[in-house]
Amino acid sequence: MKERIKIGYIGLGRRGWGIIKIILQMPDVEVKTICDVRDDHIARTLGEFEKNGIAKPAVTHDYKDIINDPEIDAVFIMTGWGAHVKLAKESVLAGKYTGVEVGCVYDISECYELLDAYEKTGAPLMMLENGCYCRRELMALNMERKGLLGEVVHCKGGYHHNLFECDLFMKNAESGEVETNHYRLIEYANRNGETYPTHEFGPISKLLRINRGNRVMTLASFSSKARGLKEYIKENISPDHPFYNTDFRQGDIVTTVLTCANGETVMLELDTTLPRPALSRDFTVRGTKGMVSETRKTVFLSGMEESVENNDEEFYEKYDHPLHAEYAKIGPRGGHGGVDWLTIRGFVESVKRGIQTPIDIYDTLLWMSIAPLSEASIARGGMPVDVPDFTRGKWFNREPLPHNKYCLDEVIEDPSVPIYPDMKE
Amino acid sequence: MKERIKIGYIGLGRRGWGIIKIILQMPDVEVKTICDVRDDHIARTLGEFEKNGIAKPAVTHDYKDIINDPEIDAVFIMTGWGAHVKLAKESVLAGKYTGVEVGCVYDISECYELLDAYEKTGAPLMMLENGCYCRRELMALNMERKGLLGEVVHCKGGYHHNLFECDLFMKNAESGEVETNHYRLIEYANRNGETYPTHEFGPISKLLRINRGNRVMTLASFSSKARGLKEYIKENISPDHPFYNTDFRQGDIVTTVLTCANGETVMLELDTTLPRPALSRDFTVRGTKGMVSETRKTVFLSGMEESVENNDEEFYEKYDHPLHAEYAKIGPRGGHGGVDWLTIRGFVESVKRGIQTPIDIYDTLLWMSIAPLSEASIARGGMPVDVPDFTRGKWFNREPLPHNKYCLDEVIEDPSVPIYPDMKE
Repeated sequence: MKERIKIGYIGLGRRGWGIIKIILQMPDVEVKTICDVRDDHIARTLGEFEKNGIAKPAVTHDYKDIINDPEIDAVFIMTGWGAHVKLAKESVLAGKYTGVEVGCVYDISECYELLDAYEKTGAPLMMLENGCYCRRELMALNMERKGLLGEVVHCKGGYHHNLFECDLFMKNAESGEVETNHYRLIEYANRNGETYPTHEFGPISKLLRINRGNRVMTLASFSSKARGLKEYIKENISPDHPFYNTDFRQGDIVTTVLTCANGETVMLELDTTLPRPALSRDFTVRGTKGMVSETRKTVFLSGMEESVENNDEEFYEKYDHPLHAEYAKIGPRGGHGGVDWLTIRGFVESVKRGIQTPIDIYDTLLWMSIAPLSEASIARGGMPVDVPDFTRGKWFNREPLPHNKYCLDEVIEDPSVPIYPDMKE
Repeated sequence: MKERIKIGYIGLGRRGWGIIKIILQMPDVEVKTICDVRDDHIARTLGEFEKNGIAKPAVTHDYKDIINDPEIDAVFIMTGWGAHVKLAKESVLAGKYTGVEVGCVYDISECYELLDAYEKTGAPLMMLENGCYCRRELMALNMERKGLLGEVVHCKGGYHHNLFECDLFMKNAESGEVETNHYRLIEYANRNGETYPTHEFGPISKLLRINRGNRVMTLASFSSKARGLKEYIKENISPDHPFYNTDFRQGDIVTTVLTCANGETVMLELDTTLPRPALSRDFTVRGTKGMVSETRKTVFLSGMEESVENNDEEFYEKYDHPLHAEYAKIGPRGGHGGVDWLTIRGFVESVKRGIQTPIDIYDTLLWMSIAPLSEASIARGGMPVDVPDFTRGKWFNREPLPHNKYCLDEVIEDPSVPIYPDMKE
């Protein structure tokens, strides 16, 4: 096992900036090289090194300097969606452990390019999907694996998040000007599909044992008309904005239904351009013995009073996943209530041990494939489309992932792996 | 206008019994004849007449005695699903105003039989869908018609109701024995589809102006595996029960998506055989200016704080539909929080005035058609199927229904029509 790993880090925009600040708190990770095309992003990041008293990393504008560096163990790809596949492919081909921010491919062929690269080198590729490490999602996994929910037959989730002011038309913190170049706007102008499914589908996929004894067979997507963005722009954004007159293609609500080989259905919703309350993933699991519902903040088990609601605190006390039980004692770190930390640690501990990542390439490819499959189904009026089996038949007989506490397939207690490598256990 | 109408009443089982008790409180309705095949049901009903000091009605085992009675203005069909179409068709052919309890057809041809009957006589056929008169649903209609929700792009709803003990395996009140003959069990053993959509789809259909300027184009349904019923039976029901060894076909969760000519999507869920909290229709409306959510008990309008929740009381104060505002003053009567009363009154006031019913035959047929369309789609693996246009092209240019306060197409204040005909206005 390596005591300390060296990473290269590509992409220092908003998300990349948030995550590198977390990584700089990890004493077992050396950020050897950082890469971005924008000098202001690099300068901001170097400042963070200085603030933390950490020796400055190498700096490059060319990601190849990272991918070709034999000393680098792992590569983080934190760019916008559009560059994920190209960079991940080269990184995997170079034999690096590769962590990639959430996002989907544009064309299904890109999944096969990544798969081909993986089949050549075996270098793990992990989508850094923090939804998998959220407390409620992990409690549901824990309860399901203990049999408390009975046989799970249906799950649902969504990305319910009005992005008008936090993403699409974010104001520059200094100038107060509305930014005009968020890539999601360009996506929404051109595409119509379930382009952001993984926060909810990641944990559902794990809970349903997809790619390990189960698989997704079909996907069908349906789009409402696209009205929210255009109306918001007319009322709130200056006519100088480059998208002022755009007729967006992205429907305001995209509903997607997946069917699984083991008979489960999964319903997903993309909901980012209409007024609504705060972010929700509406994570919902339905089994023959119980239900977990984020929106209701409720766990319901057979035999309980039907009037029960808002009882999840009580269930966290009883059935918290060991990772969050430990977290509750030692306190979380980093963004999104500490789940970014857990996600990065799951990746880093795999790199240190030279084992498979908790989210593997088959998970990553399946999750990335949802956008183009969804676009195809919408274009055909909701016709179900075939979902590829990226395991190429191995799904019904695959070995479990190597065990450690970050495993998302089973629930493993493993005190030998710390959450904070700088703390004595 | 007739001051008092005469009705015939067919079906005195659980639902029929509940509704006739309400009708017996209406001084402008004379129940002239009642009909049921079971003498115990008839005896129970006659007892209710006696209790209320009302002259006993004629009694028959043969529904034709009602349908052929020239003195009867309107026929109530309150039987199980299986008999609705046959009875409704004969009633419409006989020229009677016909009110039919909720339920769907089995085959799409049945809708055309009813349509043919209607085109011969013009006798109104109204599904007595009480969901349309619920307070939240009517408030949403009121807000939408006032423009407060902006342009509506998506709606959803479901029948989320664990029926194990209240329907499927109800205990006889006297003997304590589990009843074995509920027709829903027989349906669930044989069929798999969205067989109970109207409580949520009725009000959504009205809100979206379906059949009056809008229509449903496609329907796609997806079924989870069927596990809940079998598992419940094994653990709770005697091996003597006739369905003890049945492998039910009805999936535990059926997800249905409709697409509309005006670009809206509608998502429906049927959820009756898994453990869950109390009945919810999860009524949800999403517009460019606002959202109404039953599950969240929240109305959200553009510009509100994202943290808002449980605020619907405040909106009832401001935007209650006039029917419920009036109700709040005079107090509701009858089952389901008073909505059964409003539903029956909507029908009765139309009969008295000789005008079209607030839910007309085109609404009724569309709503009834969902079950077989859904079964067909599920059988094809979720392929979207065409939804018939029962208006035969009239939907984009139909006259509004005659106005009165029970209208579900527009919001009409009409003090000349009382909620309680026995009270002075």
